[in-house]
Amino acid sequence: MTITITAFERSPDRGKGLARDMRVRWALEEAGQPYDVRLVSFKTMKEHAHLALQPFGQIPTYEEGDLALFESGAIILHIALNHGGLLPDDANARARAITWIFAAISTMEPVIVDRETARFEEGKESWYPERLAHVERRIRKRLGELSARLGDAEWLDGNFSAGDLQMISVLLRLEGSALLGEYPSLCAYIARGQARPAFKRAFEAQKAVFLAVSAGGQ
Amino acid sequence: MTITITAFERSPDRGKGLARDMRVRWALEEAGQPYDVRLVSFKTMKEHAHLALQPFGQIPTYEEGDLALFESGAIILHIALNHGGLLPDDANARARAITWIFAAISTMEPVIVDRETARFEEGKESWYPERLAHVERRIRKRLGELSARLGDAEWLDGNFSAGDLQMISVLLRLEGSALLGEYPSLCAYIARGQARPAFKRAFEAQKAVFLAVSAGGQ
Repeated sequence: MTITITAFERSPDRGKGLARDMRVRWALEEAGQPYDVRLVSFKTMKEHAHLALQPFGQIPTYEEGDLALFESGAIILHIALNHGGLLPDDANARARAITWIFAAISTMEPVIVDRETARFEEGKESWYPERLAHVERRIRKRLGELSARLGDAEWLDGNFSAGDLQMISVLLRLEGSALLGEYPSLCAYIARGQARPAFKRAFEAQKAVFLAVSAGGQ
Repeated sequence: MTITITAFERSPDRGKGLARDMRVRWALEEAGQPYDVRLVSFKTMKEHAHLALQPFGQIPTYEEGDLALFESGAIILHIALNHGGLLPDDANARARAITWIFAAISTMEPVIVDRETARFEEGKESWYPERLAHVERRIRKRLGELSARLGDAEWLDGNFSAGDLQMISVLLRLEGSALLGEYPSLCAYIARGQARPAFKRAFEAQKAVFLAVSAGGQ
């Protein structure tokens, strides 16, 4: 059955791979699964047909035959549970890898997203610099804890897994910030993820969407 | 094999069931699985032995034989995948129920937690009232979208599932706030969750910990 995902017609990150379809593309590439992409505009995302697929009006979604899913974390887990390449075979190791998917989404991502939300929605408020200090302190705490756990290991728990895919995708939201540079082992961890052929294929595919839209001069 | 989870020795919510061990207790009760609880102090949580189980120094953790997990979302999913009562049998319905676990954690919970974090860490700042308005606007947006999707259904997708358990647990963090009262269908949804015998057993069990500590006068 054909897999179809949705992605931004015009990604706000201009092809930097930070929109959440990138994570799903990466998972599908790791699993060796071909997929189609349906591009949606910001207007379309708020319309009934898309809200039926994604009640919060976001991307990505995942359709395969009769199945329709949303939430990139759930989609990645679904791909990982149904195809090889993203989870270990041993039941306990599998459960631990899934734990890292949740740690990335639940413990790391909210504090990282908070920095973007603050800049976007509160960046013009007089108190933004003071608030940013609070946010960055919380991010540093989590980065320090993650760095301590990773140690000098290559991946978070044994071989590369969907847990690493999700964690690296979350950490990439900090790319280019001075914050990440304070944790060299995490920078190296991210670089190992980016060096994977599946990551590169996914990255080029999402970038091609941005370049095509730009070239169209629309 | 015996299941052992960790919980706060002195829960900051004073037995209101808002600490994340409550979600795991509820899941175990729905699945009909007995469990032991090891109480940890705030000091213990930051020590090496606990950090080996939970790298971010939080509760709950889950131990069963050789398996050790953290992240309540991952633990609930593990229980749901390995026991009856929390996920439908049909593969597609199962994947959709899991999607709601992620939606609760990834889309709903961060904006709701943000309100608590703001109060706790920024509540004395001069700009707190202005900031709170931003936070509450974001919460209302999500509550509105969730309420629209739920409609007049009893649960989010067919029968009660681990997705409802997680979503209701997240919404309970707003209990007593005027915000939640603006969405009567969500209040009724929460009440249906609280009326489940498994919820009640879990709630009483965590409350008993608080009462025992209080009675001890420690």
